[in-house]
Amino acid sequence: MTPEAYGALEARFRRLSLLGEASRLLEWDCATLMPRHGAAARAEQLTELTLIRHELLRDPALVDLLDSAENEVLDSWQSANLATMRRRWQHALAVSADLHEAETRAALACETAWREARPANNFSGLAPLLTEVVRLAREVATVKGEVLGCAPYDALLDQWDAGLRAADFEDLFARLARDLPQLVATVVERQAAEAPPRLPNGPFAVADQQRLAERLMAAVGFPAEHGRLDTSRHPFSCGTPEDLRITTRYNEDDFTSAIMAVLHETGHALYDYGLPREWRYQPVGEALGMSVHESQSLIFEMQACRGRAFMTFAAPLMREAFGGEGETWSADNLYRLQARVAPSLIRVNADEVTYPLHILLRTRLERLLIAGELEVSDLPGAWAEGMRDDLGIVPPDDRDGCLQDIHWVEGIFGYFPTYTLGAVTAAQLFQAARRTVPELETALGEGDFRPLLGWLGKNVHAHASSLDTRALVTRATGRPLDADDFETHLKARYLAD
Amino acid sequence: MTPEAYGALEARFRRLSLLGEASRLLEWDCATLMPRHGAAARAEQLTELTLIRHELLRDPALVDLLDSAENEVLDSWQSANLATMRRRWQHALAVSADLHEAETRAALACETAWREARPANNFSGLAPLLTEVVRLAREVATVKGEVLGCAPYDALLDQWDAGLRAADFEDLFARLARDLPQLVATVVERQAAEAPPRLPNGPFAVADQQRLAERLMAAVGFPAEHGRLDTSRHPFSCGTPEDLRITTRYNEDDFTSAIMAVLHETGHALYDYGLPREWRYQPVGEALGMSVHESQSLIFEMQACRGRAFMTFAAPLMREAFGGEGETWSADNLYRLQARVAPSLIRVNADEVTYPLHILLRTRLERLLIAGELEVSDLPGAWAEGMRDDLGIVPPDDRDGCLQDIHWVEGIFGYFPTYTLGAVTAAQLFQAARRTVPELETALGEGDFRPLLGWLGKNVHAHASSLDTRALVTRATGRPLDADDFETHLKARYLAD
Repeated sequence: MTPEAYGALEARFRRLSLLGEASRLLEWDCATLMPRHGAAARAEQLTELTLIRHELLRDPALVDLLDSAENEVLDSWQSANLATMRRRWQHALAVSADLHEAETRAALACETAWREARPANNFSGLAPLLTEVVRLAREVATVKGEVLGCAPYDALLDQWDAGLRAADFEDLFARLARDLPQLVATVVERQAAEAPPRLPNGPFAVADQQRLAERLMAAVGFPAEHGRLDTSRHPFSCGTPEDLRITTRYNEDDFTSAIMAVLHETGHALYDYGLPREWRYQPVGEALGMSVHESQSLIFEMQACRGRAFMTFAAPLMREAFGGEGETWSADNLYRLQARVAPSLIRVNADEVTYPLHILLRTRLERLLIAGELEVSDLPGAWAEGMRDDLGIVPPDDRDGCLQDIHWVEGIFGYFPTYTLGAVTAAQLFQAARRTVPELETALGEGDFRPLLGWLGKNVHAHASSLDTRALVTRATGRPLDADDFETHLKARYLAD
Repeated sequence: MTPEAYGALEARFRRLSLLGEASRLLEWDCATLMPRHGAAARAEQLTELTLIRHELLRDPALVDLLDSAENEVLDSWQSANLATMRRRWQHALAVSADLHEAETRAALACETAWREARPANNFSGLAPLLTEVVRLAREVATVKGEVLGCAPYDALLDQWDAGLRAADFEDLFARLARDLPQLVATVVERQAAEAPPRLPNGPFAVADQQRLAERLMAAVGFPAEHGRLDTSRHPFSCGTPEDLRITTRYNEDDFTSAIMAVLHETGHALYDYGLPREWRYQPVGEALGMSVHESQSLIFEMQACRGRAFMTFAAPLMREAFGGEGETWSADNLYRLQARVAPSLIRVNADEVTYPLHILLRTRLERLLIAGELEVSDLPGAWAEGMRDDLGIVPPDDRDGCLQDIHWVEGIFGYFPTYTLGAVTAAQLFQAARRTVPELETALGEGDFRPLLGWLGKNVHAHASSLDTRALVTRATGRPLDADDFETHLKARYLAD
């Protein structure tokens, strides 16, 4: 029998989970189908849902239940669930209803303005709104840090990856900062010396791209009857295990951008699909956090689908989808097309080798912003300087500089590091999977992802949030996270053959 | 300055309104795009949202605010808003949280089973679930009747049209029961004596039908940038004034079914679009109820768009949409095609003359069900008998008999009368509009709905829920609702020319 206080908590967190799912469907609709004029009302609906969740978490009765449940006899998953519940409660407790509403509304106002300010390259117009967002983020970081007993920036990290602290990745990021610029230079030099791969000639009709995307999604294991593929400005994945929603965007001149985004999002979706059903609607049954989530998408996209083995399988399907002919459509050419490296201005378009440098810059700057050591008005200068130092290029304007990302504008700080932690984790997990599943690589060459999914299911998906990220990685790979496998992977892919 | 208690109520009802909008978006998605496997989780999400709304309405603090606000100085809209709030509170107060959850879950279980039971013609398999739904509906009707001070069935009517009582429409329905069967017989006889209109030859591609539908929606005034047209099993309209969602379903052999459904739903949508923005998110700012809502859709579909004048405008567009040629595509032939009358088994496919007879049967049976004078097990027999008496035909099975409608299965009782009240109201409103706007008919012939919409905006939409249905009809047409204009309309359309 479920212990009483713990059982009452499960009922409350089930409600929170369902409200969260409702919110995400509203966000999905907003990003895919909603008429533009619906934005303001949708923002009000979403704000109301987030305020209600926040209220439910701050209900004074909750803390008594949490305390009582500590004295009940729980099994290990129930204990982990209780710990996750307490952490959620702490995050909510720290932030008063007024601060939460102020934070939500400031972010909405800033994001709305950003949608106009970015194309207009109008940083100074956005600055007052962004300053307010940063001010509130500092306040939230401070109060959450007090409740969690950690530094303010660590408290923000904790929102996206429970237990993550900046100290956990400082050495790793320092190593990447040291190694990657040299690696980028070497790869660029080497690629410049080779005959460049040839771009297949478009245009590629959207309907054909979508059919190909759906075929590849199915091949890698996406359960077609449990989800949908739609179109949005930026690809994303959300939904529930029964109803996975992934999106992509189509470029008629380059079909690979849509396809690779779909394979990336499929990795996210398969994680959600693989979570243990018996813990559905409970915090412990949710995905572990954004570092691990990103590792799942990058194992699919970067480790598996951009590799030579998978491209051998995919190239004929691509050729067939567009009626292509000739050497341009060979697996080798298409593989090499996906493996071009060059410093560039825009993070979301960056290749795998330069991408972490974009993240390192953002992590450095957001830490300074939260610490009050950098002001919003100094952001354009700091950005340009950072890009010059790390990537050797300087954005000609803010549109392609510090205005490019939505995260800060939305009030999201402490999230950027999870992209690179995800990439590094992906390499380490994939390497462990290859070690223990010898047939994995051959199977990928046949478009068969079952060996990979089987390993991920057992070592990642099935644990949901019953372990923390550090424990999960150590258990799955035999050691704590480090950059060895990631750097080995980059050298193997970009320098070895 | 807004009075204090009243202002606090506005804040609470704004929240309820936003949660209601979120629910409707989830329902829209469920009916249009959601993968089948998502149904169970979506039902859980929707149940949670409805339980939260119910809890918020039953908050003990609410009744104190309602009482305090009665003593504050309010203007007439604020007073009407307060009255509507109190009525909502009464409906929620009557139903305990347990009864509400039981009702919601029984309806979900029954509806889910019905989706299989109907195609399988399996009434006896559904009967236990439907019996439970009816049992709970009786209980809800009784407790709501006690709080509202009215008969149980009246309390159910009150959910869909505030203040509506069965006594309000008994004479009107008795008159239709007396007059319509004879009218149907006369029209059928007359049409049998004429050369039948010819059906244009399909197939009609869905994409072409959709383009035509969008063109006609725009012509009649649907604000394209404030909404969407999608596909669902049954056409419906929902959404918000900023983001109107209408749906239809396509038949490749008969394009008129999709088009007429779109014009019907556009009438609903334009009502929502025309509601006063300054009362957005407040009960008094919502549409008045289902009788008036249905009148708006039927004014568009039945009064305007199936009329000769509009068909003169629409026929060339229809011909052009499908590259049609010849006399089949004449306005006269297409008009006559839309004006066929015949007793038939399925309500949703019924013509305008026989439709009320379907409603009269359902109203009679649901009153008996709620009164405990008819049991679910006796429904198939009572249905067959009623169809024979009223329409002269008997369904060969329950699939096309008492299993055809979703309403009772969903726990919805007291709703059916609003279809016919809507049809009768549509005729009376349209006649009043024609009287006061002489250019209305000519404009419809040119596809110009502005005169009609102007009159509806001023006499219906702008009042939102500040009047009750009876008061609104009397004010707009100069007299209480009666069947005169409806019967005159039917005779004019089906017997005059």
